[in-house]
Amino acid sequence: MSDFESRWVERPPHVREDDDLGALPAGFRAAGVAAGIKAEGLDLGLLVSDPHDTTSAVRFTASGVLAAPVQVTKERSELSRIRAVAANSGNANAATGRPGLDEAARMQGATSMCSGAPTEQVAVCSTGVIGVQLDGQKVTKGLLAARAELREDGALDFADAIKTTDILDKQVALLVDLPGGTVRLTAQAKGAGMIQPNFATMLCFVQTDAVVPAETCDLLLGVCVKRSFDRISVDGQLSTNDTAILQASGASGVAVEPESESELRFGEALDYLLRRLAVLMVRDGEGARRVGRVVVRGGVPEGVERVARAVANSPLVKTAIYGGDPNWGRIAQAIGAALPGTHPLVYDIRVEGALVCSGGYGTGTIAEFTGDEIEIEVTLPGDGAETEVFFSDLGHEYIHINADYTT
Amino acid sequence: MSDFESRWVERPPHVREDDDLGALPAGFRAAGVAAGIKAEGLDLGLLVSDPHDTTSAVRFTASGVLAAPVQVTKERSELSRIRAVAANSGNANAATGRPGLDEAARMQGATSMCSGAPTEQVAVCSTGVIGVQLDGQKVTKGLLAARAELREDGALDFADAIKTTDILDKQVALLVDLPGGTVRLTAQAKGAGMIQPNFATMLCFVQTDAVVPAETCDLLLGVCVKRSFDRISVDGQLSTNDTAILQASGASGVAVEPESESELRFGEALDYLLRRLAVLMVRDGEGARRVGRVVVRGGVPEGVERVARAVANSPLVKTAIYGGDPNWGRIAQAIGAALPGTHPLVYDIRVEGALVCSGGYGTGTIAEFTGDEIEIEVTLPGDGAETEVFFSDLGHEYIHINADYTT
Repeated sequence: MSDFESRWVERPPHVREDDDLGALPAGFRAAGVAAGIKAEGLDLGLLVSDPHDTTSAVRFTASGVLAAPVQVTKERSELSRIRAVAANSGNANAATGRPGLDEAARMQGATSMCSGAPTEQVAVCSTGVIGVQLDGQKVTKGLLAARAELREDGALDFADAIKTTDILDKQVALLVDLPGGTVRLTAQAKGAGMIQPNFATMLCFVQTDAVVPAETCDLLLGVCVKRSFDRISVDGQLSTNDTAILQASGASGVAVEPESESELRFGEALDYLLRRLAVLMVRDGEGARRVGRVVVRGGVPEGVERVARAVANSPLVKTAIYGGDPNWGRIAQAIGAALPGTHPLVYDIRVEGALVCSGGYGTGTIAEFTGDEIEIEVTLPGDGAETEVFFSDLGHEYIHINADYTT
Repeated sequence: MSDFESRWVERPPHVREDDDLGALPAGFRAAGVAAGIKAEGLDLGLLVSDPHDTTSAVRFTASGVLAAPVQVTKERSELSRIRAVAANSGNANAATGRPGLDEAARMQGATSMCSGAPTEQVAVCSTGVIGVQLDGQKVTKGLLAARAELREDGALDFADAIKTTDILDKQVALLVDLPGGTVRLTAQAKGAGMIQPNFATMLCFVQTDAVVPAETCDLLLGVCVKRSFDRISVDGQLSTNDTAILQASGASGVAVEPESESELRFGEALDYLLRRLAVLMVRDGEGARRVGRVVVRGGVPEGVERVARAVANSPLVKTAIYGGDPNWGRIAQAIGAALPGTHPLVYDIRVEGALVCSGGYGTGTIAEFTGDEIEIEVTLPGDGAETEVFFSDLGHEYIHINADYTT
């Protein structure tokens, strides 16, 4: 039973926790091995959906600098029919030029060989240090070892193999009641830093045994990513490697049909799953003590978005929250910085529901910054636009982790 | 004699250091007093140029949330004829609404009374905590005390009174040889955090005894601010209070004439002065161990600017530099994040002159991140555009300072 709780993420009534986190939905097998890419621990995962009519959808980072595996998967794979996924940690295979692309392509070929899926039905993912060549021999050997260990209950090892600086487990297993029967929905993700707009150094793999048309996979993954991984920020940094993959094996025989009650329910379950993982990533933000959610309302969508990002990414706001310091003035500063030239700007700030600043003017109410989850609401002039961003605070552990990452 | 040295800021040959940092140029008097706004120490400065034909120019923050003193000075003062300046630390008088505006106006009135300058020739400035009402009685009493202490060598006390988290002194006194004779050029500034685009929680007061037409003051201050305070970032945060004021008393009788050798020379001296102060602010960036300069070249001005800001503000790059960790991959990550959707992007990265990434591909050369000043050069496709940003690293001291600022 999961002990996940957040007032910001509510489980729909037709979704239950599945106690067995290791077990994958019918049709899937997975493994995680130690391939020697990291100094120690599991670092290479293999995930296979055996049914030949498996459907899928994929989302990638928006960065202008794409890691080699992202490039290879994006350009050479059939994204609606991904059956096998190989993912390594310890090396991002990014900024590695032509040799890096060759290694990613070899990784794809070896995964095809080990999974039985055609090359174009294989996705490859990497996460770790940027700018260092990936050792292809280790990857190939590792994949052969992983092939021998593929199991229907291999999700835990697979999840372990994709971690980098993660401390919290980012695995979820759910049972979803649909009109035609119950399906399973599981996910393994990683991500704790280099996380921001339009999602993150995050890898997220989602599996279901429902029968889901590829177009529905794509629609639902797109919508749900926009409400989850697109709305979080640990440190405002967009990664070169982000990849999210949804695969549906169809092995349960229970159908998710377009524009039906089943699609609505499955979509709600996926939404819950991804928002829960997104909040977990922020909670696990490198060194985070507290988690914030900033909600901004106003008349101009771009302004609302800019203010939300400015507050969520302000090191001054983040350190104040880390220190439990009721310095809401830094929120006012971030609002002003996000909207240059708009003076006189009339705005309200609420912290944990209490109005601390009304019409741009401190009310004398003390901002409460000491809980585990801090909710900040900003109201700008006008209405009709609203957005939210979840974010980590900024503390000593972030410096520890990031000042000494490669050495 | 100043011991300021940076390979990035070169003193022009016609500019000399003036050993007497306390003395102001002819025509000016200043004082700094303890008005009780801060728990201890000097916190209120008064600066007066006695000649009635003093000229001036002013630049303010671009924030959409303007502090009350910025608003009052901007709207009620004659910015080309500022004779008196009052500046307090310990309270920003920002997000303080109508009462805050009233206090700023009262501060302006009291300064007029204490300096003999008409209200519209008074500028008021504040720096410190946002969202707390400024105690006007303390300010008025303090100004009366300051009036009694106005001295031609009062620059040191004035400079002390405007400091907040500053550790390094930000005072400069120069002698500038112009065709018509030698003039003095002095400045007192503060700024160590909340510093970024389009300048910063910085206050900067510059005085000269040259005769400078108000339009020339405005032209030169505008150009020089763009090359100095606009090009620095401690933490990417734009303040509500930034103000830079240049005042020319004319008391030396030596003229700076438009489009002449004297204007060129005076402009070079002012440029040197402001760039030196800008580098000092970054060096003093809260908790900074190392200072970086990122130079970006390419074909598109907006892209060049975005990449420079992204590198300078990346907490991942900043922590790597703090840790002396040769992790240049984070620079590649910041470049990609700044230019979404541009893949495949061809770029080079040089660190301290060494090519560590060529055409987006690591060369195997180790990046040297261990000196006091780190120079990063990024080359994007095309040419014709170039910019630079000076920035601080991000270390434990920033967290210490900012997690516990008001409490």
